[in-house]
Amino acid sequence: MNGEVHARLAWVAVDWGSSHLRTWAMDARGEVLARAGSGIGMLALSPEHYEPALLEAIGDWLPVSGHVPVWICGMAGARQGWREAAYLPVPTRLDQLTRGAVAPTVRDPRLHVRLLPGLCQHADDAARGFDVMRGEETQLAGLVALEPDFTGLVCLPGTHAKWVWLEAGTVMRFATSLTGELYALLASQSVLKHSVSAARLDEPGCSEAFATAVHEAATDPGRFSQRLFALRAADLLDDSLPHGQARRLHLDARLSGLVIGLELSVLADELRHDAPVTLIGSTELCSRYALALEALGCSSRRFDGEATVLAGLGLAEANSRHRARD
Amino acid sequence: MNGEVHARLAWVAVDWGSSHLRTWAMDARGEVLARAGSGIGMLALSPEHYEPALLEAIGDWLPVSGHVPVWICGMAGARQGWREAAYLPVPTRLDQLTRGAVAPTVRDPRLHVRLLPGLCQHADDAARGFDVMRGEETQLAGLVALEPDFTGLVCLPGTHAKWVWLEAGTVMRFATSLTGELYALLASQSVLKHSVSAARLDEPGCSEAFATAVHEAATDPGRFSQRLFALRAADLLDDSLPHGQARRLHLDARLSGLVIGLELSVLADELRHDAPVTLIGSTELCSRYALALEALGCSSRRFDGEATVLAGLGLAEANSRHRARD
Repeated sequence: MNGEVHARLAWVAVDWGSSHLRTWAMDARGEVLARAGSGIGMLALSPEHYEPALLEAIGDWLPVSGHVPVWICGMAGARQGWREAAYLPVPTRLDQLTRGAVAPTVRDPRLHVRLLPGLCQHADDAARGFDVMRGEETQLAGLVALEPDFTGLVCLPGTHAKWVWLEAGTVMRFATSLTGELYALLASQSVLKHSVSAARLDEPGCSEAFATAVHEAATDPGRFSQRLFALRAADLLDDSLPHGQARRLHLDARLSGLVIGLELSVLADELRHDAPVTLIGSTELCSRYALALEALGCSSRRFDGEATVLAGLGLAEANSRHRARD
Repeated sequence: MNGEVHARLAWVAVDWGSSHLRTWAMDARGEVLARAGSGIGMLALSPEHYEPALLEAIGDWLPVSGHVPVWICGMAGARQGWREAAYLPVPTRLDQLTRGAVAPTVRDPRLHVRLLPGLCQHADDAARGFDVMRGEETQLAGLVALEPDFTGLVCLPGTHAKWVWLEAGTVMRFATSLTGELYALLASQSVLKHSVSAARLDEPGCSEAFATAVHEAATDPGRFSQRLFALRAADLLDDSLPHGQARRLHLDARLSGLVIGLELSVLADELRHDAPVTLIGSTELCSRYALALEALGCSSRRFDGEATVLAGLGLAEANSRHRARD
């Protein structure tokens, strides 16, 4: 396989987050030739360790001579990462991310590394609050590469879920909710850990329990903190719940629904029922958000997380080649 | 001192929670003769270890012969505690808690131990949801002992903050918020841990930051999850914030205000501005809640947590003596 990679390698795509490194060997047409990765993320690295960690992952793909463009998005470009690629303030055109890219110092002459910047938002009198993203902007650029001049509302679910308002390929504003982190802390560290067990929504009754909880939290967010404790009390008192593991799955679906419903509450006024929300991420998480949106009468469509990050890094690579040619 | 305790000891008061044991030697007039305690709570004990742990704390107070009433409230009476004192369902008259008391088996003939029950609430079509308390009911009984036929709204702040509607000494309904636990998880385990440092509200600017955050979360709870992440983003971007430790204190005050404001959101309609909320608990926590209520235009008054638990256990002891005499 490495023979084919060596023959066709045009550039390397890298998504380098807080706790992961994912790399792809790409050919000139944007096809994936090979994948590699590790759990060595920004939190585990100081600046001088990035190049060895990168070579460990992609060294086998590199030619003996010549140089290979390497495009990196994510936390590797944070202040505490390899080298800081300062945030671009919104509004920002997503096909212009390369303007904020920086090149860290590398020793291996075959590597031509660029780190893409994140986006930041300062608070103003409109609906904007202080906010930052790093990594998701590249997926959004990928969406715009796949659908030029995209206009609409995009959601990237996850540890820190992002909602992004795009107009003709420009990020106008965005808002981050602590949803994934809040769920994980409550499910694994709070008193609720005794009552829940991570549920897939295709378990019997779980999607209904989830959708009901989404609706409750989205329409009555002020009772959120009470509804959390009520999950524990229901576990102790509610005879109508199933028993054993089924009970824990049911309560987990409710907990997940409450946390996602809280996130959606503020958006209820902005969710236009004629226009679908564009979800970017994994099948499992996006299905959950699709169901949550459905519970509020909204439709959605999904783009794959990996496909958008590769399209976004590919757009940066293509823009850079065009500029070099001009 | 033990001489005086031996001479005057009438009964022993015990508050035995998940992670603490607090005991008081009481005389016949309800005065405290001595205190003892440990960090050996319900979570650390199996049923056969309760009596030794109790004797370790209060053994020195006991007479050589005769027996001493020991009244216990808290998690020692839970199903996973010493012996279960089953929840009494609300509505419940607080001077009738002894009806649900149980006596665990003890070997030492000097101990006459009773465990007080908690309260539970089943969900109904009114404002009641599933809920439980164990320990706070005894503080509420103490409030009623101090102010017979008390009517009003009571708040017991803490890990699981309780709001209780009392009518003429009867608990009509109650609601628990996960406030203290939510704050602790966010401040110490989430991405926000990098941005906050536990603040006392008498630090410069902290009470204002706290009150503003209370108001934001109470009036616009749907944005709660976004406001959490915005604390992190403000730490990265907001030049108007103080620097260094003052910055972390400021952001901690805001985090605390958001979590307490979320708790108060659902109550906003029920907070009567002519009637103060009765707070039961520590000076520090009750001051914080008083400030939060003030930010919403409400007044409050405070009862000390220890004074109410002793009055509540004392009421049980007095009722039991009266019944024995009848």
